Parts: sequence; structure tokens; C-alpha cells
Amino acid sequence: MSLFKEKFNEYIRFTERNLKNYNMHSSSTDAQKNLIDSMNYSLEAGGKRIRPVLVYSFCEACGGDYRTASAPAAAIEMIHTFSLIHDDLPAMDNDDYRRGKPSCHKAFGEAMAILAGDALSVLPFGIIADDDKLTENQKIQIISHLARAVGKNGMIGGQVIDMENEQRYDVDEANLRNMYKHKTGELISVSCIMGCICAGETDMRKIEAAAEYGYKLGLAFQIVDDILDVTSTTEELGKPVGSDEEENKTTFVTLYGIEKAQSIAGEITREAMLLLENFDNNGFLMELTDMLLNRKN
Amino acid sequence: MSLFKEKFNEYIRFTERNLKNYNMHSSSTDAQKNLIDSMNYSLEAGGKRIRPVLVYSFCEACGGDYRTASAPAAAIEMIHTFSLIHDDLPAMDNDDYRRGKPSCHKAFGEAMAILAGDALSVLPFGIIADDDKLTENQKIQIISHLARAVGKNGMIGGQVIDMENEQRYDVDEANLRNMYKHKTGELISVSCIMGCICAGETDMRKIEAAAEYGYKLGLAFQIVDDILDVTSTTEELGKPVGSDEEENKTTFVTLYGIEKAQSIAGEITREAMLLLENFDNNGFLMELTDMLLNRKN
Repeated sequence: MSLFKEKFNEYIRFTERNLKNYNMHSSSTDAQKNLIDSMNYSLEAGGKRIRPVLVYSFCEACGGDYRTASAPAAAIEMIHTFSLIHDDLPAMDNDDYRRGKPSCHKAFGEAMAILAGDALSVLPFGIIADDDKLTENQKIQIISHLARAVGKNGMIGGQVIDMENEQRYDVDEANLRNMYKHKTGELISVSCIMGCICAGETDMRKIEAAAEYGYKLGLAFQIVDDILDVTSTTEELGKPVGSDEEENKTTFVTLYGIEKAQSIAGEITREAMLLLENFDNNGFLMELTDMLLNRKN
Repeated sequence: MSLFKEKFNEYIRFTERNLKNYNMHSSSTDAQKNLIDSMNYSLEAGGKRIRPVLVYSFCEACGGDYRTASAPAAAIEMIHTFSLIHDDLPAMDNDDYRRGKPSCHKAFGEAMAILAGDALSVLPFGIIADDDKLTENQKIQIISHLARAVGKNGMIGGQVIDMENEQRYDVDEANLRNMYKHKTGELISVSCIMGCICAGETDMRKIEAAAEYGYKLGLAFQIVDDILDVTSTTEELGKPVGSDEEENKTTFVTLYGIEKAQSIAGEITREAMLLLENFDNNGFLMELTDMLLNRKN
């Protein structure tokens, strides 16, 4: 196994353990137990855990111990999970499956899914505030960045743009980039920022490079998604292919075709890698970036 | 106008101005403007603003300047508004009206209402983290208390108990008290706690008295709601009366009748007032408590 793969697996194991510990059953009523079960159901549904891995690896790239970042790493994965649960709801994307399993509202009912998402939107801020490894100053910085990245001008704002684009036939590249930047980029960018802050990084040049890297990685990630939706198989992808076309969505592939979309994703990935030159210990991040560009699902 | 009423109005004006300022239009896309409009629509729908008033008045009861508490006061009203927006959704209580106006999902559509609620669940934590009047230590304490009061073992946990009780015919007083404590009591109790922290209060005896007062006020408030649902008129109440009976809900009135419910609410209110004896400047809070017990809507 490569050193990269070993480290990646170590990060994943650490994430899984922490997610479980931070969302333990500790309450007395059966009702609340059902809520926590529904939260855990979606938290444990897998996913790539890219956001926690970015938190850890930027913490290490800035010379920190990645274990310092356990709370922000769990927090960002909970926020991501909350957004998926609400995205899948009948009133939103109406998806019955997520990663091959029934989505939260199919498994637990719509009302419980709304509340599970709500609880996963709030718990992260408590986990960070109650952490015993970060200073009060680090916690406040992280909560401020996180709330901004998630909120009305961040990820949730991006979901609104995405929703309103569904009614439009004139979505151009600028609109699409803006939508991806908010809907996907903000959470990825803030993961990188939080990793730096956990390491006690104070060099604003580095923090800004991390933020910019995150936006570029998020955009490349999303363009690769657009490409896989037409080039992959349902088996490889773990979800139906061709859904973008079916839903009449504008993507980088519908705008430019597969080949040009691939070259744009490659170019953005190279720009992202250039930003990593700002960090001394960037070996893991270089391989991670390459892996995400060349992924098959 | 009584001194009490003057102070009450001053608190309300301060709240309205801050809610507007903290949720300003600052973003560039029309889509995000629609999101912010939907958030403001529900924030501006009125309501009694009891929670911000409690934050301010406990801050003053502990010798602080109530203006120090602008961020936590706005935060708790946003959290309350988020819970109402999601409560009204078709999958939840399916209420088309809230305070005489179309509920958020009737005015903006279901998807936008889900996202408006989501944005209002996250914004409060950013507002507190970014505040320039509180110390880092105060902010961390407040965020920790707030996240716990809202989350799976707090208000959201209470909503799940309420939801599951709808399927049951054996709801007893203990269950009902536990449900009210979580669904209503937690936000009211944390409002009182946050006010103390804003004043820099460190006497744990006082903070615990404030928390306990909040639980008692929340319970009395809820029992008075149960009573008004059968004794008030739709005009006075601003919403249809008799809805509890129609929905077969167990309340203090269905358990004990109007007269005994009134005497229980009175007893709990007296206990709450006794707890206020822990505070030197408790005049406003005494009148507020009395007003809430004897309200007509």
C-alpha cells in the first residue's frame, strides 16, 4: 500500500470513530433515540469523507497534528450530511436513493428527515465550542468561517441558485461557476481554512492560498462530476448516469462537450496544485488532488 | 405608559432593528436575494419577541448593559423563527397560516422554506462569533449553551417527542412535561442563561436559577397556550381555537380540565417568581412573568 493510501485510510478511520462519538445516544426518550438513529443512518452512509481529509491534511501541511482538528473535521462532514438529507427531500431533488441506500426520508419519513438535517446543522457548532484541543480564539475563527461558508451567502445560497437555475434555459458559464462555487466550493474551501487554523497558522497568505485551493478543487470536482454523469456506468458511479441530461441541467459538458470539459478540469486542477506550493508538507495534498481529478466515481 | 411597558417597547425596537441589520441584503445574485427575502418575511412576521426580551432583561438583572446582548438576542429569535418555518411545512404540522399571514412555504414555496429555515439555523452562530461586544470566552459559552438547547437533546428533540406523541393515546403528564420542557422550555431557558453570560455573570447559583426560571416560564407559557386554545376566540388568539381537540392532542386541559390547568400554571408561575429573588434588579422580570401568565393571546 502506498504511503498516500495508508495516510488516507488513517484519516478515514479517525473520522468514522469521531463521527460516532460525537453523535452518541445519550438521551432518555425513545423519540430522541429515533432522531439520533436517523442522523447516524445518514452519517454512516459513507461518502468519500473528502472534507474531513482536507481539514486534516491542511492542518498537517501547516505543521500541525491532525488530531487537533477532530471537531472541525466531524463538524464539516455533519454539515455536508445535513445538506444531502435536505437536498434529497421530495420538495427539493426528490431522490429516493443516496449511495445505493434509501435516502433518509425514505428510511425514516419526511418529518424525521427534516429534523435529522436540522439537528445535523446545529450540532457542529456545539462540537467545536465544546472541543478541548483548540483555543477559544481558534474556535471563534472556525465558527465564524464555518457559519459564513454554510449560510445564505455560502452553500445554502448556492442551493437556491441551483434551484432557480432549473427554471432557466439561459444558464451560462459564469452562472454555473458561481453556483458551483457556492453549492460545492464553500464547504471544501472552509475545510482547508479550518485545517490551517487548527495548526495555529497565522500567515494570511497561506490561509488565503488554502481557501483559493479549496474553491478550485471544488470546481474541478464538480466538472468531473458533470463528465462522469455521461461517461461512467451506473455500476461504477453508484447512482444513475445521464440524470443531468434527463433533468435538462446545464453542466460543463452541455456547454462545452466532454473533451473541453476535461481540459478545463485539468487546467483548474493544475492551478490548484500551484497553490499548494505555498505549503512545505504538500505531498499528500498533491496526490489527493490528482486522485480527485482522475476518479471514476 | 408604565415603566414596564416603556422598557418592553425599548427592547422590542432594539430587537427589530438588529434583526434587520443582521440579515441585510449583501449578496449579488437574485437567487440569494429571494432567500434573504424569505428569511426576512418570517423574521418580520412579528411574534412576541419574548426570547430576546428575556436575554436583555436577565442581562440587566445581572447588572449588565442590555445592548451587549444584541447578538445572542437576535440569534435566539432567528432560531425560534427557523423552528416555526420548518414546523409549518406540509410534512410537519402542515399549517398554511402563521400569525394571520401565509406561512413561509405558502408564500415562497416548500423548497425555499426549507432553505430559509436552514439558513436561519446557521446564521445565529456566525452572528455570535462575529460580535464585537462580547469576549471570546463569552461567545464560546453562549454558542455551547445555544447549540445544546437547540439540538437533538433540546428543542429539536422535543419536536420529535411531539411528533411521536401524535401516534399515541397514552400520553401522561410526565411525557407532556418532558415534551414541553424540550420543545418550548429549552429556548426560553437558554435565553435567560445567555443574558446572564452577556452581563459577565460568573455566579453559577444565579445562572442555574435563570435556567430553572426559564424552564418554569416555558412550561407555564405552554399550559396557558393549552387553556387559551379552548377559552379564547379566534379573533383574540390570531389563530383558530379548538385545534388541540380537533387534532386529538393531549394537553394539560384534556388531562385535568381548565380550572386545574389554570391552578397548575399559576403555581408554576409562583415558583418561577421565587427564583427571580436570586436577582437584585428583578422588577421588570416580575412584571413580565405576570403578564405572560395573564395574557389573552
